Amino acid sequence: VRTRHEAVSIDSQRKTVKIHNLDKNTFEDLSYDKLILSPGAAPVLPPIEGIHLPGVHTLRNLQDTDKLYALARSGIKRAVVAGGGFIGLEVAENFARLGLETTVIQRDRQVLGFLDADLANIVHREIRKAGVNLILGDSITGLAQSDLLTRSAQGALISGLAQGALISGLAQGAQGQLNLSLSSGKTLDAEMVVFGIGVHPEVVLAQTANIQLGTTGAILVDEHMRTSVPDIYAVGDAIEVRHLVSGAKAHIPLAGPANRQGRIAADHICGIGSRFGGVLGTAILRVFGKTAASTGLGLRALEKAGIPFESVTIHPANHAGYFPGAEGMTLRLYFDPASGKILGAQGVGGAGVDKRIDILSMAIRGGMTVDDLEAAELCYAPPYGSAKDPVNMLGFVGAGLRSGTQPQITNFRLGKSPDTSAIQLVDVRSPGEHANGHIPGSVSIPVDELRERLAELDPAKPVVAYCQVGMRGNVAVRILLQKGFRVQNLSGGYASWEQLFGG
Amino acid sequence: VRTRHEAVSIDSQRKTVKIHNLDKNTFEDLSYDKLILSPGAAPVLPPIEGIHLPGVHTLRNLQDTDKLYALARSGIKRAVVAGGGFIGLEVAENFARLGLETTVIQRDRQVLGFLDADLANIVHREIRKAGVNLILGDSITGLAQSDLLTRSAQGALISGLAQGALISGLAQGAQGQLNLSLSSGKTLDAEMVVFGIGVHPEVVLAQTANIQLGTTGAILVDEHMRTSVPDIYAVGDAIEVRHLVSGAKAHIPLAGPANRQGRIAADHICGIGSRFGGVLGTAILRVFGKTAASTGLGLRALEKAGIPFESVTIHPANHAGYFPGAEGMTLRLYFDPASGKILGAQGVGGAGVDKRIDILSMAIRGGMTVDDLEAAELCYAPPYGSAKDPVNMLGFVGAGLRSGTQPQITNFRLGKSPDTSAIQLVDVRSPGEHANGHIPGSVSIPVDELRERLAELDPAKPVVAYCQVGMRGNVAVRILLQKGFRVQNLSGGYASWEQLFGG
Repeated sequence: VRTRHEAVSIDSQRKTVKIHNLDKNTFEDLSYDKLILSPGAAPVLPPIEGIHLPGVHTLRNLQDTDKLYALARSGIKRAVVAGGGFIGLEVAENFARLGLETTVIQRDRQVLGFLDADLANIVHREIRKAGVNLILGDSITGLAQSDLLTRSAQGALISGLAQGALISGLAQGAQGQLNLSLSSGKTLDAEMVVFGIGVHPEVVLAQTANIQLGTTGAILVDEHMRTSVPDIYAVGDAIEVRHLVSGAKAHIPLAGPANRQGRIAADHICGIGSRFGGVLGTAILRVFGKTAASTGLGLRALEKAGIPFESVTIHPANHAGYFPGAEGMTLRLYFDPASGKILGAQGVGGAGVDKRIDILSMAIRGGMTVDDLEAAELCYAPPYGSAKDPVNMLGFVGAGLRSGTQPQITNFRLGKSPDTSAIQLVDVRSPGEHANGHIPGSVSIPVDELRERLAELDPAKPVVAYCQVGMRGNVAVRILLQKGFRVQNLSGGYASWEQLFGG
Repeated sequence: VRTRHEAVSIDSQRKTVKIHNLDKNTFEDLSYDKLILSPGAAPVLPPIEGIHLPGVHTLRNLQDTDKLYALARSGIKRAVVAGGGFIGLEVAENFARLGLETTVIQRDRQVLGFLDADLANIVHREIRKAGVNLILGDSITGLAQSDLLTRSAQGALISGLAQGALISGLAQGAQGQLNLSLSSGKTLDAEMVVFGIGVHPEVVLAQTANIQLGTTGAILVDEHMRTSVPDIYAVGDAIEVRHLVSGAKAHIPLAGPANRQGRIAADHICGIGSRFGGVLGTAILRVFGKTAASTGLGLRALEKAGIPFESVTIHPANHAGYFPGAEGMTLRLYFDPASGKILGAQGVGGAGVDKRIDILSMAIRGGMTVDDLEAAELCYAPPYGSAKDPVNMLGFVGAGLRSGTQPQITNFRLGKSPDTSAIQLVDVRSPGEHANGHIPGSVSIPVDELRERLAELDPAKPVVAYCQVGMRGNVAVRILLQKGFRVQNLSGGYASWEQLFGG
């Protein structure tokens, strides 16, 4: 193990790597039989003015973490995090917990791009509830050093402390103040800015050996992790992988697959023919009190890939509701309408989200269908689940959609202001629930009155029924189907509509 | 919905059911087109003397629970629970939490028969740590009413309270005292005894229609839940099912499959051809601070079914060890040596056992193998798991066993006092760990010294290496294999040996 040494170039003809001893500033050639590249990925910095100012940081390794932690506790007041992905949100949460005024700026209209917009909104509310200033649809276009003292330094000046104390305060805490310009025209001040807007694969060393890159710009490898150059392998965040659902090439830096790739490269070098099949992109993040997780593909990725899909959404509790401590979640399942095969799943909520996404990840890998989810036999005792686990419920609702017994429409397809000239929108909840908030244009007919009030509906006009989470809506759909109506249930009910379009 | 009515007989020719109105004591015939039997299963009471005495109880429904709860809080001191299954242990835990002196008597040498003996031992320790008196390998052979006052009543007498207070105390709290005789010859006193020694399917009503029973004594049904009599279906705890791993007929009363069976019967009646495939027996129980769970088959069931198997055992944490709050568990995987297909899994420990057993249940249903577990892509962030999740680790260890790169032996096969004339037993932990407890006959050669101390081993004699949990033992096995030794690693290490044979 050579620490403080950098591999600077590869001679694949002579099979040597040139090594730079960073302490002695000497160079040396090391020969190899087999070479494994595992250089990882580096944080992306945007090419904007002021990006190299002191006070601008990224987070890649333990040393960066230690530095950010020390800075956050050095007396500064305000931090800005650019980027609402894993790194950005984890940094922001830690800053907020350390008492900093924290702002997150995200270029997209949502954080955590692997989530659908409505599930991301749950995360937005959680972030804002924790006091973080979340700015969406905006980005930093430039940074400038300010001559202003930091607030703490100003405070020290105003309170008339001795010059020595002020200087000490500046030296310890004040990192200088940065003025940030945003693409919206807004400006922000902060003592520290962390960029967590993404990573790019480290390919410079690979390119010295003319190793072929893939279409994503990451290193191209085969299923044994071999690059285009004989006896050179590559693994981890620097390589291009195949997405197991879409089949498309992708750059998906994740710890689990990276570890697996290392094992497969080692296997192949040792004569064992293990193969790397691809990546599902299973990912999870804790954001304050919530968990956000996903496996396979979500709405935007499915649309982009042109894959036919249907989805169902439920809002279950993690375990039996009568057992103390049940926590809620929103779960969504994507599947192929023709075969029923599972294409993706995502969830946001309290305890138990990780378990359901893991079960569904396993189901995708096993090529399983919504019918298999119906039949899944999962641990049930009141502290752990329900006799009908959320995974079973996804199967029930999905199989009903596929078979036609439970026609459904998503919140995305219904839209914020449904066209009630084309459909009849029926709120089958109680009048009280309706009065507390409903979808514009909907009429209130509680499900228990529906059979008696059928005359209020036009049999010639399609109906969309909804309740709070989808259960009563499903009963209403069954009643109306039997009466000859064309009808759909709003999957996930008013809760899902409100998650997508609510304030 | 007819409450307080009992269905007493079926006339399958006339397609009627005779109904007894329990309040009015009248009878009536109800006709049916399709009939679904869902009578459940009833607690087994052993045919012993005194079984019908007051103070002897069972637990089947909510009313029983309310009654037991009221009795437990009525001032009695001592309760005995017969049976160490789900019901028995849940009742015992609740009694103990309510402050009763609680004894559990279990005929088998272990509680929770779906667990292997070593994993059951973890549960035994947890039960005893909570102050419950756990008696294994014994059973109640008779009960007798005692004339003695209860301890509380004795106390009241001794402390010289007025007669009125004593009578009141007896009326409220004292249920009379029971003297229990055990098959060991021991005796026990208690104010309350609960029998939770198993259930039998309720088949009396079915038998009035000459419905065929299966070999287990439960109602025989086909994959659409049809009984042997036309237009009569049966579902739930009264029916016989097929075990999905063994293929054998079994009576496995579980809430999840029962619910599923109800849906399938309804589907078939409505013209939908849903099929019930069988049961994996996925089950879970919280026992004080521990979780015990299982899916598929365990050691005794595999041996009984004559199914070839291998197993691996690990002792992982539920999430990254560097993240606060990690909890340990013991996980075991059974698989088919030829195909690698998963046959069963079980786990006992803290948080996260339910998640892993659910993932493995899904893997069994999907016909997946240990190789699929290696490749499983599960949610990883430090609060939820590890980049190498326990499920992946089971895959790594299992695949190494199958491929021959990681030969292993189980604690069961090694035995309590290994024959060191036949094998060399090497403890590759540190000398300090060895001194704190080791397997009899083992020599201490720390793994880091193994290459230098090979001369201490006889190359002609098979070696079993072990460490604490299996990691260092695996390194030792790799070293010794390369040096030409015949060697096996003790799966699960000293921890698993101690769980099986320790005090």
